[in-house]
Amino acid sequence: MRYPKNMNEEGTKGKKPKHTFLSRFQTLFSNMTRKPVFKRTLAIFFVILALYALFNTFFQSYDSSAFDSATFPFNAASASSILLATGKSTVPAVKVYLYDLPRRFTYGVIHHHSLARGSRVDENDLSSLKYPGHQHMAEWYLFSDLARPDTERAGSPVVRVLDPDEADLFFVPFFSSLSLIVNPVRPPGSGSEKTAYVDEENQEALVEWLKRQKYWQRSKGRDHVIVASDPNAMYRVIDRVKNSVLLVSDFGRLRPDQGSLVKDVIVPYSHRIKTYTGDVGIDKRDTLLFFMGNRYRKEGGKIRDTLFQILETENDVIIKHGAQSRESRRAASQGMHTSKFCLHPAGDTPSACRLFDAIVSLCVPVIVSDSIELPFEDTIDYRKIAVFVETAPAIEPGYLVSILRGITPDRILEYQNELKEVKRYFEYDEPDGTVNEIWRQVSKKLPLIKLMVNREKRLFAKEADCSCICTNQTAIITL
Amino acid sequence: MRYPKNMNEEGTKGKKPKHTFLSRFQTLFSNMTRKPVFKRTLAIFFVILALYALFNTFFQSYDSSAFDSATFPFNAASASSILLATGKSTVPAVKVYLYDLPRRFTYGVIHHHSLARGSRVDENDLSSLKYPGHQHMAEWYLFSDLARPDTERAGSPVVRVLDPDEADLFFVPFFSSLSLIVNPVRPPGSGSEKTAYVDEENQEALVEWLKRQKYWQRSKGRDHVIVASDPNAMYRVIDRVKNSVLLVSDFGRLRPDQGSLVKDVIVPYSHRIKTYTGDVGIDKRDTLLFFMGNRYRKEGGKIRDTLFQILETENDVIIKHGAQSRESRRAASQGMHTSKFCLHPAGDTPSACRLFDAIVSLCVPVIVSDSIELPFEDTIDYRKIAVFVETAPAIEPGYLVSILRGITPDRILEYQNELKEVKRYFEYDEPDGTVNEIWRQVSKKLPLIKLMVNREKRLFAKEADCSCICTNQTAIITL
Repeated sequence: MRYPKNMNEEGTKGKKPKHTFLSRFQTLFSNMTRKPVFKRTLAIFFVILALYALFNTFFQSYDSSAFDSATFPFNAASASSILLATGKSTVPAVKVYLYDLPRRFTYGVIHHHSLARGSRVDENDLSSLKYPGHQHMAEWYLFSDLARPDTERAGSPVVRVLDPDEADLFFVPFFSSLSLIVNPVRPPGSGSEKTAYVDEENQEALVEWLKRQKYWQRSKGRDHVIVASDPNAMYRVIDRVKNSVLLVSDFGRLRPDQGSLVKDVIVPYSHRIKTYTGDVGIDKRDTLLFFMGNRYRKEGGKIRDTLFQILETENDVIIKHGAQSRESRRAASQGMHTSKFCLHPAGDTPSACRLFDAIVSLCVPVIVSDSIELPFEDTIDYRKIAVFVETAPAIEPGYLVSILRGITPDRILEYQNELKEVKRYFEYDEPDGTVNEIWRQVSKKLPLIKLMVNREKRLFAKEADCSCICTNQTAIITL
Repeated sequence: MRYPKNMNEEGTKGKKPKHTFLSRFQTLFSNMTRKPVFKRTLAIFFVILALYALFNTFFQSYDSSAFDSATFPFNAASASSILLATGKSTVPAVKVYLYDLPRRFTYGVIHHHSLARGSRVDENDLSSLKYPGHQHMAEWYLFSDLARPDTERAGSPVVRVLDPDEADLFFVPFFSSLSLIVNPVRPPGSGSEKTAYVDEENQEALVEWLKRQKYWQRSKGRDHVIVASDPNAMYRVIDRVKNSVLLVSDFGRLRPDQGSLVKDVIVPYSHRIKTYTGDVGIDKRDTLLFFMGNRYRKEGGKIRDTLFQILETENDVIIKHGAQSRESRRAASQGMHTSKFCLHPAGDTPSACRLFDAIVSLCVPVIVSDSIELPFEDTIDYRKIAVFVETAPAIEPGYLVSILRGITPDRILEYQNELKEVKRYFEYDEPDGTVNEIWRQVSKKLPLIKLMVNREKRLFAKEADCSCICTNQTAIITL
């Protein structure tokens, strides 16, 4: 369990100045309390604080939610009046309920994953059940985050509530991506039947379980959050959970009515190579363009193959075939840390883990994937950190390298500096990293969720009825 | 200019306790400062405040926007750490730039409206140009609100910025609904040509003006806010401004690619009858159901006519034909204040001013309009304040009254209490009323606007590309 360990390390580091300051403050304080005059000062100070609390009660509430009433004296109204003067405003923190799912959907999946790999672990000893590292770990990090005690969750954009009646949103912690890879790819009859685990059965069982929950019934699942970061995760039951906020890597395998930028959240892959900890610069980055990965893919395969052909003859370009393994991850780390640009062609679906490996390597991504969706794009302007090249010209011989050779060292440094700025959004391990940003993105869906839930309850119309936002000004939607 | 006047009245009323408290505090303060010990207290108090500001700088930022840096010492990070303990979180207040439009789009419209009605007003004396009362006044209230000095805007969910480079959103204060009714309906040749005002020309001129603005060009208008609350407002140029956030009454005359719940904001009509200031109760409400209005409409007219026929024979139902006039507004006030239920059939489009008249009258709305859209539906659950009846059964003789007679006095009181709770959302005049809620709704669009703007800049795909949220689970969208 790397996450809690790192969290503590980072957390302590982050709080150090606070402790230093506090101890200095305490010294100052104890010196002062020796003098009788300070007791009086203290008393007056607290009287003023108390008066301030009283004072707040005279303000009217500027709370955005209509029926909530703030009971704490330092309430939303007073806070917003203060904060507006500084250009900030307060909103009630979004309340999330973590479903206590039957074990089969969480630790049970880890258990079966271990069993299928020959480990003999005790199903009831949770600490022995380590979630294995792979590229779709959002489900683990979000679950671990909500499961932590509140004291360790300070700074999170969402508050966990233990009473589902108080919740704005419901988190369903099914390990859907791990479930997909429980059974390793191996020849039939070689022992995989021992695990007796069938992903599709578990998906079906989850939907049956959800359908029995009153909070699911109440909103038809609209206020539920489900992680399906592997593009194939949840595929069997996707039509039955498509009302929910889905946390996905892209919409490559989803129809527009199953997933959309409006309803869902694009989450980053968990990067699989080591973060580059050095500074910006191109001195140690001799390779112009680096790519390592599978040359042949199910879809988009032709483009990859063509890119291989036109790039492998270039001197300062490293492009090589490689499958997932510890060995090739080490080679990829080495390559990405010593290259100026990292190629990101479409994988089986428009997204791939490689983009996030490149970002944490400060290797400027060169994205050749026309219909890619990118995480947190309201917050991150990807043109500042990546080069986008349209597929059609990119597969013309010479075009890609000529563009990249035309980018000045100063411009590369600009890209690298921006990469450094946004890197934390792609670090699931960091205290204010990917996990918090995912919660922030999920929180932003809440107004539309509430609107849809309220509206659906009073609607009579039975026809399909979609609200959209479109990129193309001349688009006309036919329903 | 009713707005600033009422604002002051209301504002003073709202702040009274504060003044009382402040004066008491000042007395206490002056008593205390006579003693030397208090000077010391004061000094220490401010030292503590200063230390607190220092203290804040050690915290890391939890700011949701990636590239903003808070310069004020009491920054977002510290505020959120404090507020999260109380279940609140801070967000940077949304920054709005008010375009300084050429006069012809704002006061010029008021001037022409006066001219066309025979008033001789001085075009250059702004105080003589009173915006006339009508049912689509959102444009006036929002403009007046942003035009007020910052000190009078405390508590607003948006901050006005004077530098467009700092703005998140751009407000275009064209009086589009007033523009539509500048020329009174009168027989040709009776003098209307004197005004020489053509709404469509002004719409065209506005678009030409916008197209020359660099901020419009930058986002293709996506981060611009345009009021078009009359369902016919802006109709000539709607396709050229449809990327913007439109503030509308309904989507009756808009195609799904022009307006949607995702992109736009439904705003209430400005109610035209007097607010009921009495308490909840049914003792003085002898009429079961009240309706007054035009019996014949362009669309939905048949339903209104049928409702008239089946309802006008009922003893405790008042249903009468009436056009817009001061006289009929007085009669409608009287009727709505003394009825338990107020009928709201569809008008020319699914929405109508009458619903909002009913709400401020604490007369429970009976909504017979299957495809109505309602303002602020993420915040307001309309089933708590209104009775929804599907059109088909509603026009069966006896059905509507039998439903209403079955509603117990206690249930009516429940409706009335809820109406009282949410009434402020429909009062454009109130300090934390409609105007603030509209800004809140507009602010909630910002993440999706930013996402779309960033995404559009790096996309190559030229095809239509829509992101949707749908009410019907089996809906499949064909693009």
